Amino acid sequence: MEIRVGYAELEATLVRAMERLGLEGERAARCGRLFAETTRDGVYSHGVNRFPRFRGTVEMGLVDVKAKAARVAGKGALERWTGHRAPGNLSAQECMARAMELAGEHGLGCVALNDTNHWMRAGSYGWQAAEAGFIGMCWTNAIANMVPWGAKTRGVGNNPLAMAVPRANGAHVVLDTAMSQYSFGVLAGYAARGEEPPHDAGYDAEGRISRDPKAIDAAQAGLPIGYWKGTGLAILLDLTAAMLSAGRSTHDLPLDPMQESGQSQVFVAFDAAALGGDTERIADDVVRALKALPEGEGGGVRYPGEKVVRLREENLRLGVPVVEERWRELLELTR
Amino acid sequence: MEIRVGYAELEATLVRAMERLGLEGERAARCGRLFAETTRDGVYSHGVNRFPRFRGTVEMGLVDVKAKAARVAGKGALERWTGHRAPGNLSAQECMARAMELAGEHGLGCVALNDTNHWMRAGSYGWQAAEAGFIGMCWTNAIANMVPWGAKTRGVGNNPLAMAVPRANGAHVVLDTAMSQYSFGVLAGYAARGEEPPHDAGYDAEGRISRDPKAIDAAQAGLPIGYWKGTGLAILLDLTAAMLSAGRSTHDLPLDPMQESGQSQVFVAFDAAALGGDTERIADDVVRALKALPEGEGGGVRYPGEKVVRLREENLRLGVPVVEERWRELLELTR
Repeated sequence: MEIRVGYAELEATLVRAMERLGLEGERAARCGRLFAETTRDGVYSHGVNRFPRFRGTVEMGLVDVKAKAARVAGKGALERWTGHRAPGNLSAQECMARAMELAGEHGLGCVALNDTNHWMRAGSYGWQAAEAGFIGMCWTNAIANMVPWGAKTRGVGNNPLAMAVPRANGAHVVLDTAMSQYSFGVLAGYAARGEEPPHDAGYDAEGRISRDPKAIDAAQAGLPIGYWKGTGLAILLDLTAAMLSAGRSTHDLPLDPMQESGQSQVFVAFDAAALGGDTERIADDVVRALKALPEGEGGGVRYPGEKVVRLREENLRLGVPVVEERWRELLELTR
Repeated sequence: MEIRVGYAELEATLVRAMERLGLEGERAARCGRLFAETTRDGVYSHGVNRFPRFRGTVEMGLVDVKAKAARVAGKGALERWTGHRAPGNLSAQECMARAMELAGEHGLGCVALNDTNHWMRAGSYGWQAAEAGFIGMCWTNAIANMVPWGAKTRGVGNNPLAMAVPRANGAHVVLDTAMSQYSFGVLAGYAARGEEPPHDAGYDAEGRISRDPKAIDAAQAGLPIGYWKGTGLAILLDLTAAMLSAGRSTHDLPLDPMQESGQSQVFVAFDAAALGGDTERIADDVVRALKALPEGEGGGVRYPGEKVVRLREENLRLGVPVVEERWRELLELTR
């Protein structure tokens, strides 16, 4: 069952929970806030409902709550950082902040981060850039959870990517997308309802394309968007992240999702505003043109980030939806 | 019918053809070479076979053979250029060269180009970066030739993207992919053979998802890879290109493919080598891991760019395949 919790209470509770896990001061505050904001923005899979899994990675020693990401090399606007397996969302936020600092100085900036941990919600760092007026891009590699085109078993990661552009009204356009057609979470939803998704969704254990959510989950074998095309995108996102960061590529990461750690990531910020030109009008015009298209079966185009703005407003007004059991566990931990 | 023409003769003939169109000196040489190399590398749709269409854009005045791209604004490693509707492949090559120059100075560099023309083969500028030892990324927007998820009619471009990483052995990994599941050229091939493609391929005139290549062509309505996911990617590639370049976005471009002109593009180069670390080993290891995966129905994984290396070698050895009629037209023009 789901209940709604006031945003302030949710954030405060998550911050206390982070303190219980051993995070300190502003790091506990920032980590708790990232989880709370993710839930507030409607990305329920990667916010408070994922806290138990995050807690598990801390308790297993995959995430080192006392560690901090640090710069290890750099040339001008390009830096390489190492994550020391600190909490992945904190390091990601720090690297995007540094990329924006570099962009403020050089016009654009890039930080590549190795040996980090799951950054939770890709979009967090896109919103971070857009809120500060930058165009932002970031991507991460992931464990091998998709079958590359031509293979029979999994061998590439779904490698989530965020791209964000700012708008004056705060309704930034923020894409947060993995290279898989469906996430395992969405497939689990279909399985729970006894349904199949409407499009090819992954591979079964025999290496055949499948829409059976249970078979796909058992094989941990997602389908790249566009078959061969998403395969190529996933390979290049992995390569660029691993090469820029001198970090691990997908085939160097553990296969077990519960052991996922050590990823490579890239954060890029562009100071488009510094070049002048009415760039925010361009974004508004594109959104307007998309919304003016005749509606198809899906009921009109939704631009990336549109749903976030709507759910954020709704959840701040009505309270943030949380799985009741998760909330009880949190209260117990922080009592 | 196809014939094979020696590479040197093909390039020399194309250079003369460019001179006949009014390009001068090194610009004719470079433009002809880009067309010849594209065919040599097996991208037959965007090389010499496309010359008549390129010639048409020159004769219609969409492409100004006397114009040159020029810098209009900049901040450190980020520059904005305007294409003045010069030949798109020349301007693209110049902008990637400038992005690499900026990367040599600042670690990474970006040039955003507005008011340009079709760059022909996206991969050309990826190979250019990788050959020079840089990690390269570039993308362009395009006319509205895909239906965004939720709409009934076309409204986003297929917005081709190239991503490239260098390898010591010259077999660089270079992705060259549009955001559409199939190109109109590939669909035309299915139509000519009286076949349907094996996956969803576009929309018909009633806004229904279709695999009928003729219906899709008639509606000029391609399918984004991954349905909603490729829609999001296409929107963000368009927005970032238009905003960074202060140029046109897809909805500002003409709808008629024969009138396509005025696109916005982005070129980014990363000097990963400057940060040290054995990054080329990473690329070799990723390729090895992909090739070691058990073969599925497709007969094993082909990494992006693998086919180019194979066809390049074959075409240099046996001669470059050209549609005979195209070759005769070229000889006639350059006689």
